[in-house]
Amino acid sequence: MEQQRFRVGILGATGAVGQKFVEVLEGHPWFEITALAASERSAGRPYAEAANWIGSSEIPPHVAAMEVQEAEPGFNADLVFSGLDSSVAGEIEAAFARAGYPVISNARNYRMQDDVPLLIPEINPDHTRLIERQQWDEGNGEARGGFIVTNPNCSTVGLVCALRPLVDAFGVAQVQVTTMQALSGAGYPGVSSLDALGNVVPYIGGEEEKMAAEPRKLLGTLRDGVVEPAALAISAQCNRVPVLDGHMECISVKFASPAAVEDVRRAFLDYRSPIDAYDLPSAPPRLLHVFDDPRFPQPRRHASLGRGLTVSIGRIRPCEVLDVKFVALVHNTVRGAAGGAVLNAELLVHQGYLKKRQRAAVSA
Amino acid sequence: MEQQRFRVGILGATGAVGQKFVEVLEGHPWFEITALAASERSAGRPYAEAANWIGSSEIPPHVAAMEVQEAEPGFNADLVFSGLDSSVAGEIEAAFARAGYPVISNARNYRMQDDVPLLIPEINPDHTRLIERQQWDEGNGEARGGFIVTNPNCSTVGLVCALRPLVDAFGVAQVQVTTMQALSGAGYPGVSSLDALGNVVPYIGGEEEKMAAEPRKLLGTLRDGVVEPAALAISAQCNRVPVLDGHMECISVKFASPAAVEDVRRAFLDYRSPIDAYDLPSAPPRLLHVFDDPRFPQPRRHASLGRGLTVSIGRIRPCEVLDVKFVALVHNTVRGAAGGAVLNAELLVHQGYLKKRQRAAVSA
Amino acid sequence: MEQQRFRVGILGATGAVGQKFVEVLEGHPWFEITALAASERSAGRPYAEAANWIGSSEIPPHVAAMEVQEAEPGFNADLVFSGLDSSVAGEIEAAFARAGYPVISNARNYRMQDDVPLLIPEINPDHTRLIERQQWDEGNGEARGGFIVTNPNCSTVGLVCALRPLVDAFGVAQVQVTTMQALSGAGYPGVSSLDALGNVVPYIGGEEEKMAAEPRKLLGTLRDGVVEPAALAISAQCNRVPVLDGHMECISVKFASPAAVEDVRRAFLDYRSPIDAYDLPSAPPRLLHVFDDPRFPQPRRHASLGRGLTVSIGRIRPCEVLDVKFVALVHNTVRGAAGGAVLNAELLVHQGYLKKRQRAAVSA
Amino acid sequence: MEQQRFRVGILGATGAVGQKFVEVLEGHPWFEITALAASERSAGRPYAEAANWIGSSEIPPHVAAMEVQEAEPGFNADLVFSGLDSSVAGEIEAAFARAGYPVISNARNYRMQDDVPLLIPEINPDHTRLIERQQWDEGNGEARGGFIVTNPNCSTVGLVCALRPLVDAFGVAQVQVTTMQALSGAGYPGVSSLDALGNVVPYIGGEEEKMAAEPRKLLGTLRDGVVEPAALAISAQCNRVPVLDGHMECISVKFASPAAVEDVRRAFLDYRSPIDAYDLPSAPPRLLHVFDDPRFPQPRRHASLGRGLTVSIGRIRPCEVLDVKFVALVHNTVRGAAGGAVLNAELLVHQGYLKKRQRAAVSA
Repeated sequence: MEQQRFRVGILGATGAVGQKFVEVLEGHPWFEITALAASERSAGRPYAEAANWIGSSEIPPHVAAMEVQEAEPGFNADLVFSGLDSSVAGEIEAAFARAGYPVISNARNYRMQDDVPLLIPEINPDHTRLIERQQWDEGNGEARGGFIVTNPNCSTVGLVCALRPLVDAFGVAQVQVTTMQALSGAGYPGVSSLDALGNVVPYIGGEEEKMAAEPRKLLGTLRDGVVEPAALAISAQCNRVPVLDGHMECISVKFASPAAVEDVRRAFLDYRSPIDAYDLPSAPPRLLHVFDDPRFPQPRRHASLGRGLTVSIGRIRPCEVLDVKFVALVHNTVRGAAGGAVLNAELLVHQGYLKKRQRAAVSA
Repeated sequence: MEQQRFRVGILGATGAVGQKFVEVLEGHPWFEITALAASERSAGRPYAEAANWIGSSEIPPHVAAMEVQEAEPGFNADLVFSGLDSSVAGEIEAAFARAGYPVISNARNYRMQDDVPLLIPEINPDHTRLIERQQWDEGNGEARGGFIVTNPNCSTVGLVCALRPLVDAFGVAQVQVTTMQALSGAGYPGVSSLDALGNVVPYIGGEEEKMAAEPRKLLGTLRDGVVEPAALAISAQCNRVPVLDGHMECISVKFASPAAVEDVRRAFLDYRSPIDAYDLPSAPPRLLHVFDDPRFPQPRRHASLGRGLTVSIGRIRPCEVLDVKFVALVHNTVRGAAGGAVLNAELLVHQGYLKKRQRAAVSA
Repeated sequence: MEQQRFRVGILGATGAVGQKFVEVLEGHPWFEITALAASERSAGRPYAEAANWIGSSEIPPHVAAMEVQEAEPGFNADLVFSGLDSSVAGEIEAAFARAGYPVISNARNYRMQDDVPLLIPEINPDHTRLIERQQWDEGNGEARGGFIVTNPNCSTVGLVCALRPLVDAFGVAQVQVTTMQALSGAGYPGVSSLDALGNVVPYIGGEEEKMAAEPRKLLGTLRDGVVEPAALAISAQCNRVPVLDGHMECISVKFASPAAVEDVRRAFLDYRSPIDAYDLPSAPPRLLHVFDDPRFPQPRRHASLGRGLTVSIGRIRPCEVLDVKFVALVHNTVRGAAGGAVLNAELLVHQGYLKKRQRAAVSA
Repeated sequence: MEQQRFRVGILGATGAVGQKFVEVLEGHPWFEITALAASERSAGRPYAEAANWIGSSEIPPHVAAMEVQEAEPGFNADLVFSGLDSSVAGEIEAAFARAGYPVISNARNYRMQDDVPLLIPEINPDHTRLIERQQWDEGNGEARGGFIVTNPNCSTVGLVCALRPLVDAFGVAQVQVTTMQALSGAGYPGVSSLDALGNVVPYIGGEEEKMAAEPRKLLGTLRDGVVEPAALAISAQCNRVPVLDGHMECISVKFASPAAVEDVRRAFLDYRSPIDAYDLPSAPPRLLHVFDDPRFPQPRRHASLGRGLTVSIGRIRPCEVLDVKFVALVHNTVRGAAGGAVLNAELLVHQGYLKKRQRAAVSA
């Protein structure tokens, strides 16, 4: 497959999420960056100059030299990853979908739309069937095969990955979650250092609403081409803490059927994802890692487990109010953003939604 | 009263809590530091040399020059404040109580003992009557008038101050609380910077147990000389975050009788403490401060409101699982430790438990 | 004087420096805030709403309610403090001077202009005589008595306060200085938390140039109405570190005449400022504080000594390359900005440059 | 060589440096950990239990299960790496050398001893000839072939790697260096978070003395079996800053012969190390990396360049006092400690000082 890697474009390539896409895609066996798009201001300049690179690795040389384009269809790409800000993502992503591109998006705009998959490959791989209901055309009524797939909010991902085995094993009725979220979740420049240093900000606009809504779709059941939301109540309290990468979540759960602490621990340890057999290049060795040392997981030390795609669990213990409580840790810019989107694309390749004809169709 | 200030000794004077006692008592109108005690290693040295002073103010000159003594009764003091570590507090505090000293302790050792008040003046000032049940003697069967009064764990204080108006107004059945606690709560040197920097540690030994137990005593009812614990279930999840001072708490509450968000806000705003009329020197202008800006309170900016004795509340909103959720912020080393203990002593003066005869008795 | 406090306006009142002016002026015995100006966007709104208040104290109530004006002359004020960004300060400050207002500015625009005093009251109070050479008119050739006085760059202040006694006692030929500067020096939002957290940025645009140039004017000699710059060479290396307030400076000095470490220490300890006799309200008890403990000064603990107006010195020792090295610490937003500017205004009152007729002239 | 990797023991294996040795040696093609030693308290316990592992990777499984031994000769090892604290390193390292082990030490005890190489492979590989002058015997007068080789202080390494090309090209007469050093340099638990958070500590015991002395030996000339120290004066000012890994150094240099900024830049870019031809497994692609972006290097982003073995240079510009100034960044626990020591051992293998007979001799 190496000679025929999928050509990918990145929308919002100079932003924080866009940069993470560049990092995550470097050396990818299936995908090759062939187009970078950003705002008008950046268009026409080499990427190394247009992007204020904030990563600790260096920009891959072949990407550094690429010219940034405006974010308009007409790309040399089989699919596009979108790291666009939600203020512009709605329109631009739709334009690309209409022009026949599969759009693998990290933006929130289409997540809750009925016919758009909100996708975590290990959690709800079958939801990709929603793609078949999407109808995009160029305005001339001719469908070109474009579609949009989204990944959830970064905090939602950690929560849902932790809940999946519990939903399967015991049913989950209620969830209380308090997050301590990393600064990188706010993008760049994002949070002012004067707000962040030695401080906690107990508010992240829109975050609690997403955490209450998105898991219900992710854990929902596909029936007759429609996702029936899971019937669980979620209360989220979201805080920004002075951590670089890695969202910590203190979670308390009420089960539908009784489960003791050790049952919960076993459910985490025994969890096998439906995609384990697919051999996707980015899939981590294990979705969940369980720590028994009560001091762990910690964001600075463990966010990058499984190259940032493993979700860590710890401190499983009884809850005096609901049933069981524990902590979960998710790498917000990898599993919770660019890395999750790339894994989504890998699943789509496996499922045949990204086919060679896409390449022909677009390059035509 | 200035000519006749109470003479106070500080046990554990060189430690982090002991230093805070020195800071808080500087210029106090009722109390005057006359004795400082620490471990054998420090005894005999001037305080400025024995204490590795970590505060940002300078050591008050008259204290800097005082000679540190061993922590054994025989003090020139009418009462003692104890900032001792719990590993030694049990024995030493008992020795002082037996020798006739009122001991105002920040240590956890006697907090849950039946006849020892666990005290927050604004919350349960009547619990001091437990003092009358205490019986300490010197071993020769002769009671000298000594007793022990304790203040709660630093996280407990913030929670209980926030719960009190709600218990009074609506009754509280269940509480979920997740804390983000400051580094100063672990003492000095306390948490290694390699664990703290850009990190969260999801475990503080013993803290969750204290938060589940202590509020029930604090909010309990004194009946026939015994505290009947309040019947509320509390589930706590405690985390250490890279903040200097100020514990943030994300709290969710289920009420006994219905209460809407605005009712809760009003209950906080309208709360009047029973000690408001006592005119205690350290009492803050208001126990609770309610922020309407959703970004507030924040520990670095607001922990010191009311000279560190005000508890701040914010983000009052409905909870999808229990009834209402909000955040509370408490200054852990002032309201949650030394400042709270000094306020306890002020209440005891007001109530007559610290009388002049105490002075005579001890100096005899 | 309380009944007749000077009415002061603040230019750039909603920015970080402007907010610090509000803090520093609260309760000032000589000055009373009567006007607040900011950009068009803020004009017409109450200050509490227009300013994203970042301080830890609350906005003084009477200021919170004041309506913000546009930054155009026509103020109800005897003088104005300018916390304007340098991108706009040049034009606006000139307009106010032309309209007859004394402008006490923190901006860099006029600092090096020949007839504008670059002023630290304790260092070069006589430089205010440059005011007499300034000629501002309204365009109609009529001078109204306006003028501009500036305070130096925040890092420069710490350096110059430390050098003054050494220049006086031994003469200074060469200075090497490396700074570790606080985040608040970059304003708000200023430095991104993603750049600041656990990091050092070895570059602050324009800072090294200012540190090389401004001290020569400040330490220069007023001769025939002109400041003859001091003949010392300064090499500065400026870094941003994750500290909230307080610039640390590692300084090494070559003297004109020999001086041992103890001579230098004595020069710091013995230094008496020319303004000590003036009894200015903001003047700190001592300009310099010398620490003998090698671990001190530290920014978080000692930046606020003398209410932020004392410069701290420590670690005086021989230098293997130049003569003597030591560290200095200055509070960058108080002594290095708003507090220094207010002290400048106090000196101007004392010297008679801010007279009652100013008030009449302007209110006319 | 894989079947016959050198067996290595680690002294002080549970400490911060010892843990870094374990990390750095994981998967090493030439060395295999076969023995772990620590204090009596740890001896007899599995490593995973004895070590409070602070790294972000997990303990390699085969190491986790190894039993920790007491730090006494009798090891199953061809050589030992010492991460011992200097308080005990002197005696223990000597005991191992006497018992015939090559000791590759990170401790400071023997660094300045005449017959002990103070070694950076890229800088002074020929200094290993000092080994031949070392005489260790078991007490019975019989030499067993043991010796000690040391690597420099972590700050010294960064400075010397930066100076080497300049010494070679222009000669260096004077050096001013101010460091901003990472917390990991103080070991674990090391610096208290209450001292570190949002603060700078302007003092690191003994550090400035090491930086003044060690570079003279490292840059010295081996003549008749003796190192003649380089004749350069170094003045160091050392600070602790809240950074995890990576020491930043602001350096100013006076040359023996004239050199402009561009000459200096070229000297850095053109520098080729004498070991480039040796193909040592850990050797980084380049010793020095030069940044032209003035904001770089930064410790959090660039300390790990070249797997932590590259030293980064930036901000080369003229100095107003000496000749040229610039910044350098070194990873203190890799290049400055465990990684540097392993590279030293690799050089010794290449030079034949670690031979197969060593293995036989010891295992006898």
